[in-house]
Amino acid sequence: MADARFFKVQGPFSLAELARVAEATLVDPLHAERRLTDVAPLEAAGPEHLSFLDNRRYVDAFAESRAGACIVAPEHKDRAPAGMALLLSDQPYRSYALAAQAFYPEPKKSAARHPAAIIDASAELGANCVIEAGAVIAGRAVLGAGCHVGPNAVIGESVVIGPDCRIGAGATLSHCVLGARVVIYPGARIGQAGFGFALGNGGMTKVPQLGRVIIEDDVEVGANSTVDRGSGPDTVIGAGTMIDNLVQIGHNVRLGKGCVIIAQAGVAGSTRIGDHAILAAQAGLIGHLTIGRGARIGAQAGVMRDVPDGESVIGSPAVPVRQFFREVATVQRLAKEKGK
Amino acid sequence: MADARFFKVQGPFSLAELARVAEATLVDPLHAERRLTDVAPLEAAGPEHLSFLDNRRYVDAFAESRAGACIVAPEHKDRAPAGMALLLSDQPYRSYALAAQAFYPEPKKSAARHPAAIIDASAELGANCVIEAGAVIAGRAVLGAGCHVGPNAVIGESVVIGPDCRIGAGATLSHCVLGARVVIYPGARIGQAGFGFALGNGGMTKVPQLGRVIIEDDVEVGANSTVDRGSGPDTVIGAGTMIDNLVQIGHNVRLGKGCVIIAQAGVAGSTRIGDHAILAAQAGLIGHLTIGRGARIGAQAGVMRDVPDGESVIGSPAVPVRQFFREVATVQRLAKEKGK
Amino acid sequence: MADARFFKVQGPFSLAELARVAEATLVDPLHAERRLTDVAPLEAAGPEHLSFLDNRRYVDAFAESRAGACIVAPEHKDRAPAGMALLLSDQPYRSYALAAQAFYPEPKKSAARHPAAIIDASAELGANCVIEAGAVIAGRAVLGAGCHVGPNAVIGESVVIGPDCRIGAGATLSHCVLGARVVIYPGARIGQAGFGFALGNGGMTKVPQLGRVIIEDDVEVGANSTVDRGSGPDTVIGAGTMIDNLVQIGHNVRLGKGCVIIAQAGVAGSTRIGDHAILAAQAGLIGHLTIGRGARIGAQAGVMRDVPDGESVIGSPAVPVRQFFREVATVQRLAKEKGK
Repeated sequence: MADARFFKVQGPFSLAELARVAEATLVDPLHAERRLTDVAPLEAAGPEHLSFLDNRRYVDAFAESRAGACIVAPEHKDRAPAGMALLLSDQPYRSYALAAQAFYPEPKKSAARHPAAIIDASAELGANCVIEAGAVIAGRAVLGAGCHVGPNAVIGESVVIGPDCRIGAGATLSHCVLGARVVIYPGARIGQAGFGFALGNGGMTKVPQLGRVIIEDDVEVGANSTVDRGSGPDTVIGAGTMIDNLVQIGHNVRLGKGCVIIAQAGVAGSTRIGDHAILAAQAGLIGHLTIGRGARIGAQAGVMRDVPDGESVIGSPAVPVRQFFREVATVQRLAKEKGK
Repeated sequence: MADARFFKVQGPFSLAELARVAEATLVDPLHAERRLTDVAPLEAAGPEHLSFLDNRRYVDAFAESRAGACIVAPEHKDRAPAGMALLLSDQPYRSYALAAQAFYPEPKKSAARHPAAIIDASAELGANCVIEAGAVIAGRAVLGAGCHVGPNAVIGESVVIGPDCRIGAGATLSHCVLGARVVIYPGARIGQAGFGFALGNGGMTKVPQLGRVIIEDDVEVGANSTVDRGSGPDTVIGAGTMIDNLVQIGHNVRLGKGCVIIAQAGVAGSTRIGDHAILAAQAGLIGHLTIGRGARIGAQAGVMRDVPDGESVIGSPAVPVRQFFREVATVQRLAKEKGK
Repeated sequence: MADARFFKVQGPFSLAELARVAEATLVDPLHAERRLTDVAPLEAAGPEHLSFLDNRRYVDAFAESRAGACIVAPEHKDRAPAGMALLLSDQPYRSYALAAQAFYPEPKKSAARHPAAIIDASAELGANCVIEAGAVIAGRAVLGAGCHVGPNAVIGESVVIGPDCRIGAGATLSHCVLGARVVIYPGARIGQAGFGFALGNGGMTKVPQLGRVIIEDDVEVGANSTVDRGSGPDTVIGAGTMIDNLVQIGHNVRLGKGCVIIAQAGVAGSTRIGDHAILAAQAGLIGHLTIGRGARIGAQAGVMRDVPDGESVIGSPAVPVRQFFREVATVQRLAKEKGK
């Protein structure tokens, strides 16, 4: 279903193969050898396509879908239309992701340095790197094997990049060390000096920013996001953390492992965030806070205090979620009463 | 009045001509042949300049202006200083825009490909394109006639761009199809993979992002804004929609026609927005919502529910505007009472 | 302590020299000749390092630090561990900044134009400029002496840049005039057309944006921030103003001197901000406001009215800080009472 100009499909795959790949259970073994050619959304899928139901908003679309097969949680299987093969999974979205990866593996370009790439003679590139047109790789930069540097991206002096990283078009990196399989999206800015100056009687005095950005394995940094280098300590992004677009990470921030930071959120300097914490869109955290493991910061929250492990907060200033909605309800009730 | 280093003025034009162009009415026909050389703001304008009054904050500046002529709504004409020629319009700002377009038409460069542009041999460029230095146009990209690609912009593989589009300096496009007369501002990021992963027991599983970005005719996307491609469905920006700077548009979002999305607003994945809706600055919408035609979302609003056609909401969580201000007033009154 | 791959340390310096540079007072003159090799954070410093204590959160780290010397406010000196030399300062962070500048002066590259820079023949470059690979300098641009233009940056036609400016990697400038010692961070967008159209019966009419961006001396504009040019008047950033990352400055905005605009804040068109005002992170100001000298706008504030000189506001809609926290407390109390 994907536009063949942009995406190259593999397959077809039998439902038995897809069940295995997707870590799902095929309900009717008679369908095991049925072959599917592609994945597709519920409304667009036809008999040769695999689809999925993850969000209960779309149960009606599921019930009317013409998909040949669908990955679905057991609780929804009775809504399936006749003739649809079902792959049951407790995590349908994850199962779909695995199946879709089989149909559409990450495209691998054959190793090449575009003649219009500008690679300093002192840079060291591992085997099988792809360096696109207009990319600039400065002196003493070190890239691991299998890296892909997009068009007009800039890898600054002495930057270290682990194996199998992808650096998006127009992204710029300096003063940073990246682990393996890191993905930097187009236009992201990594390693520039943080916002550091002393505001005093004598006006502003710039504080040299002497730290780095350390990005651990399997991190992603979204389009046009900014990660400033540390002022002395480093700025650290823990392994597996996912950062969406237009996010700001201030100097000396430490993000734990497996965190999720959604679009337009911002974290001010020196705040530490525990593993597996989630910051929803447009949330903001002031500096020097400690946010616990697994904390959940709601959309547009303005966090001014430490948040304990596992706590969910929202509002500006942020408070525990239950308190927030109780306060919202109280204000709504009072405003109605006064209005009478 | 504009700096001649950056802008080239046309004209002079007679007031009769300007009235026609501006779709305005010249009050005193004796002024019809008076010739003006330029547009200028009220405070800076002289006798040879055309100015305009649109915002009532500036009525005093109007009353004291030395402008030779002014576009003004009928209700303000009595405040005009003696000797000023008046062009009456019910939409003075629009009339000014039309007149200013006459003085300063969009500059057209003569067709050229800068020798330092990097254009893949398999790309197809229409007639009269201007490709600036350092721009990268990848394989199988297709550009319509009259396109302008700015310095160091990147047009990704197989991207399709309609006629008369302008792609700003340093912008990057991939996995997208653009209509006619689309303007992408510097540093905008179009078509990168959306924020798609399944968060489950087995950690995060990346979901291939198999859709595109479809941008219809006459759309503008502001500087450093980000528009992610769809995950399976497409992300769609309807004809004539205007997107300001630093805006985030998530995967699968559908914006209607003629929408206005102001700076730093964000729309999460799969939300649909009706025609002519307005999102004010820093507003945020969660995913999977339906926002009606002509809805108005206030600045910094946090929208967590569907919004009906024509409704105006504000606040976080967003509520109808009248309710919001009643609640604000209630809280202010109660806080004052308690303070006593 | 800084990673020698990225930073080159000067020195060592004696404590007498450092006290002079840092405008601080060495407590024990017997330490005057002790020589230090570097600066370091409290936890990481050893006997040969200079550290500093500025934030009282870190007093315990100070008390346990192994730093050879520390810059500290007089009030904290009694917490110092035995053997640590003390430099007293009323502005410890500023004093540290001065000392750190001595150890790590801004690196100066020797003048050079990278062969892969693309410099129009009609551009004028002052002495000792460094133009990096892939940078594009368009026709009639004028750069003062000692400027540094980063890789893949774009300087548009007729742009004027004063002496000793630094333009970050991938930044783009057009329609602007910069003073001396301006620093533009990577990916910042300066001078593109503002969000200007007349919304009327006849649809949207684009308004030519005929002003410039004027950036005075010693301004910094953070990574991926956007500053639109004026619509007729100019957009002006006053001398010494510091703008952080991902900030939006609309057309015709006038920022005073010495302002501080923190990450992800936004200022809508035609708003004027007085000298030394501070906008905290994610604050938003609607257009056409007047914000007084020394005003302080809190994080995430939504400012809809003028703010007088020296006033501090927060909340959305923004109110004076004291009022805001009283209202928050009132709501919390009422919600608790109703909950019982």
